[in-house]
Amino acid sequence: MTTFAPTLAELPHEVTAAAARRVMARCDELARVTATPGTIERVYLSPEHARVNRLAAEWMREVGMKTRQDAAGNQLGRIAPAGATHDDGPALMLGSHLDTVLDAGRFDGIVGVLMALEVVRLLRSPERGGAAGGGIRLPFALEVAAFSDEEGTRFGTALLGSSAVAGRWDERWWDVTDADGVTLRQAYREFGLDPTRVGEAARRPDELIGYLEAHIEQGPELDRSGQSLAVVSSIASARRFQLVVEGEARHAGGTPYDMRRDALLGASEAALAVERICAAEHHIIGTVGRFEAFPGAVNVIPGEVQFSLDLRGELDDERDRVWDHLTRELDEIMGRRGLRWRSREIHRAAAVPCAPLLQDVVRAGIAGTLSPRREEPPVIFSRAGHDGMALGAITGVGMLFLRNPDGVSHHPDEAVSAGDVAHGIRALTSAVLHLAAEHRA
Amino acid sequence: MTTFAPTLAELPHEVTAAAARRVMARCDELARVTATPGTIERVYLSPEHARVNRLAAEWMREVGMKTRQDAAGNQLGRIAPAGATHDDGPALMLGSHLDTVLDAGRFDGIVGVLMALEVVRLLRSPERGGAAGGGIRLPFALEVAAFSDEEGTRFGTALLGSSAVAGRWDERWWDVTDADGVTLRQAYREFGLDPTRVGEAARRPDELIGYLEAHIEQGPELDRSGQSLAVVSSIASARRFQLVVEGEARHAGGTPYDMRRDALLGASEAALAVERICAAEHHIIGTVGRFEAFPGAVNVIPGEVQFSLDLRGELDDERDRVWDHLTRELDEIMGRRGLRWRSREIHRAAAVPCAPLLQDVVRAGIAGTLSPRREEPPVIFSRAGHDGMALGAITGVGMLFLRNPDGVSHHPDEAVSAGDVAHGIRALTSAVLHLAAEHRA
Repeated sequence: MTTFAPTLAELPHEVTAAAARRVMARCDELARVTATPGTIERVYLSPEHARVNRLAAEWMREVGMKTRQDAAGNQLGRIAPAGATHDDGPALMLGSHLDTVLDAGRFDGIVGVLMALEVVRLLRSPERGGAAGGGIRLPFALEVAAFSDEEGTRFGTALLGSSAVAGRWDERWWDVTDADGVTLRQAYREFGLDPTRVGEAARRPDELIGYLEAHIEQGPELDRSGQSLAVVSSIASARRFQLVVEGEARHAGGTPYDMRRDALLGASEAALAVERICAAEHHIIGTVGRFEAFPGAVNVIPGEVQFSLDLRGELDDERDRVWDHLTRELDEIMGRRGLRWRSREIHRAAAVPCAPLLQDVVRAGIAGTLSPRREEPPVIFSRAGHDGMALGAITGVGMLFLRNPDGVSHHPDEAVSAGDVAHGIRALTSAVLHLAAEHRA
Repeated sequence: MTTFAPTLAELPHEVTAAAARRVMARCDELARVTATPGTIERVYLSPEHARVNRLAAEWMREVGMKTRQDAAGNQLGRIAPAGATHDDGPALMLGSHLDTVLDAGRFDGIVGVLMALEVVRLLRSPERGGAAGGGIRLPFALEVAAFSDEEGTRFGTALLGSSAVAGRWDERWWDVTDADGVTLRQAYREFGLDPTRVGEAARRPDELIGYLEAHIEQGPELDRSGQSLAVVSSIASARRFQLVVEGEARHAGGTPYDMRRDALLGASEAALAVERICAAEHHIIGTVGRFEAFPGAVNVIPGEVQFSLDLRGELDDERDRVWDHLTRELDEIMGRRGLRWRSREIHRAAAVPCAPLLQDVVRAGIAGTLSPRREEPPVIFSRAGHDGMALGAITGVGMLFLRNPDGVSHHPDEAVSAGDVAHGIRALTSAVLHLAAEHRA
């Protein structure tokens, strides 16, 4: 498809470098908007949320967008197709989120919102600093979304902002509470939002061309392969389980091995089986993160272990096949050791495959930034969740990953280079132009 | 040696059965002396300790013994050799302890003290119910010791009573406190003991012929082999360690297996290595009882695990060789996984081998209770600690184990049968007579 797509060959390096510098400076500026000085902390419906929405709206208007805060606290900007007389056609939505985890880095989510603004600047407002493509008449409107709650830090329920936009609001969420016992309903009111009107944030599928997001990888693959950017093939499929292994707590001295039903040893074998079975697969990763042995006395054989399993995969059926394999393995281990085991699923999210067309345009956009020898941009799947998981319910989703040194994320050391951001802005702008060409074709 | 030892062939079954019934009834009576009604709880220097000492003293006097409570709260009885004009010769000490763990059974320790009293009755006071051997002139005095703190329930430091008798008192113990902050020194005074005089409880080696104790096995070996009694070869050698495995806590989604340094997986391999290495040995048992993973979040790879290791063996060098083997294994596991590990020894007790002569007389005593087809009494080592560990510093120690159904101990379900107690009384009485014969030889 690159044969008929426009290119940004005429876009000077200095222009994308300046755009990247602006993104990095704004990441620093947003990092100062925090509930806890010395760290970065911006949670849903907080005073910091309101402040970064105001900043984002200001920057949206600067590139010619009309702005509004929607009924779920998401900050949106929109710009009509060049020359359009009515702005009521479908829009390509670009964006990411501005909320953070506790003690966060300054790029997760944020860099995607700021890059989207630079893409708009380059494509639609040459008079405001855009250089190339300013004259291109896109066949769709552009929107930039700064989602309000991707992380779920405050209420434990993630993707609230994008779920509202996707019309997937769950009425049970109103009663979840934060650490201070404040309900989501109450927090909405205190923020100045009307809980009864959250449905107004929902968008119809026919309003959207698709959703494109740039994000740091939150993993080390690009860093290790020495590449700047990747096409995302899908957003991870995930299941989480709480497992319990039951044996018998007995005196450590008096009970010989063949009379023991040691829950710790069974659970240890289980944790190692998770590693062994998942590592043998290409796109599955399983992690035992919580692990507690009871009664937990030096001279008592553990009679019970409770542990968690976080299972992520590129595809739902691959993930489910691995879980089935694991359950057979656990049956064998526990049967051999005279132990009982049970599991309870505490979370399940279907994989959201990126739309083939959007993968293609992102691939083409990245390819234009590569030296000739590297012909195929890397393709990786996202093991972390993103707003696209919610938006996938109403529109096609595409994602572009930026190199994330050593894969460090959700940590103050989280990083991305200005050079990679510049490449990313060029690739994302090019992807939009490729999509425009496809749209016209 | 059975060739020249006296036998109790003439001791009618009804006599030992009656003695065993008395032991069982007194176990019930002592079980009612408790700090927590509905459970059994008698800790050092408590009102319950004083009450059971008074009961034991009464029962000691009933079989002709002179009684005293020593400077460490142990209740002692003594009876001179028959026909002796001066009671200043060495004594064979029989006994066990009367203190308990929390929510204890009614036999651990107690049954050994009560059986010792029946042995004295049979050997020395035919007029008070003893039947056979009453006329035997033993070449040594008999003492019965009811030790006051074997379990260490109140102050966390075990064997306080027998350590005082062995002259192994540690001045640092005075400042240890119970759960209410009461120091051992203060508890001594409140009980009516003078801390400055604890040294008076110490016995000289030349005052003792040896120490013989009957105790429930606190393990299932006799129950599984269908045998009543065993010779104890040694009291377990024990070491306890606190281990720490350090890796790196990272995001569960974004970190591929080959970049992980998962402390949980390293510690799981370590726990399984403990089982594998110890199970390959005959007389070693290792238990990982405490096991905690940090930070303990569902979606974070564990960066640290802390766990305990309780290692028990028949012999110190065997136990130390296994620990050396384990440390090499842990070096390999952690090296392969990019983890660090360290250990801190928090407890070490040398094995106390039972004295060969006392093992021989116990063996001969048990052999006399067996049907002819079973020629060799079983020999097992004690995986639990006993007062003999302290007394081993000043005299030879011998022990006889009684069958303990399913090995349940330190639990209200702890049991022993009246039939096995009757066998035990006969065997222990016979052992004393064998020792007397040896002593004369």
